[in-house]
Amino acid sequence: MEDGRFMQSMLLDFYGDLLTEKQRECFSLYYNEDLSLSEIAEQRGISRQGVWDNIRHAEAALRELEEKTGLIARFEQTRASLLQIREELEVFSASPGIFSVVQKIDALISSL
Amino acid sequence: MEDGRFMQSMLLDFYGDLLTEKQRECFSLYYNEDLSLSEIAEQRGISRQGVWDNIRHAEAALRELEEKTGLIARFEQTRASLLQIREELEVFSASPGIFSVVQKIDALISSL
Repeated sequence: MEDGRFMQSMLLDFYGDLLTEKQRECFSLYYNEDLSLSEIAEQRGISRQGVWDNIRHAEAALRELEEKTGLIARFEQTRASLLQIREELEVFSASPGIFSVVQKIDALISSL
Repeated sequence: MEDGRFMQSMLLDFYGDLLTEKQRECFSLYYNEDLSLSEIAEQRGISRQGVWDNIRHAEAALRELEEKTGLIARFEQTRASLLQIREELEVFSASPGIFSVVQKIDALISSL
């Protein structure tokens, strides 16, 4: 569990639909909903060890997908470039036309 | 083989590293290098049918990955938004500061 919660959330967002349903559910309840292993076990009607195995396998699969494809890194790179572009443009945003473009860049950044 | 060559190239770019080596090679030689099945068979030392099977399985796997994750569609959406932003900004590009931003957007679009 060395990655932070944000990264786990990104991994699930990008590749979650490639997991088995059980893996995805356990992983999501643990990292997104912040439930404990015991709570997930009770809710899903499986053992605590079963929950842990699902999370562990999900995590390994997600990490391998990112290691092989690098698509999250690619998206992050795009986001970083957009933030830089936005910053450079903001000094001109007294002009209504430019202000409108800055707003569109903001919307695009939020959608990434 | 209903997708165009461009889409096959995108699929390989995004998810190619999730294929087996043989699948990736056959698919790439066929779609990117434009070799015939016979030419690939000769080069790889496998049967024409073997080459075809690898391409077919690769294609099914790649298509399933995109159907499940939608990541190419997401990138394409980003590219479309960026092109629109670029167009809107271009009318202001007599200003050197804005021109520099347009160039950065161009670089970002090319890198996608």
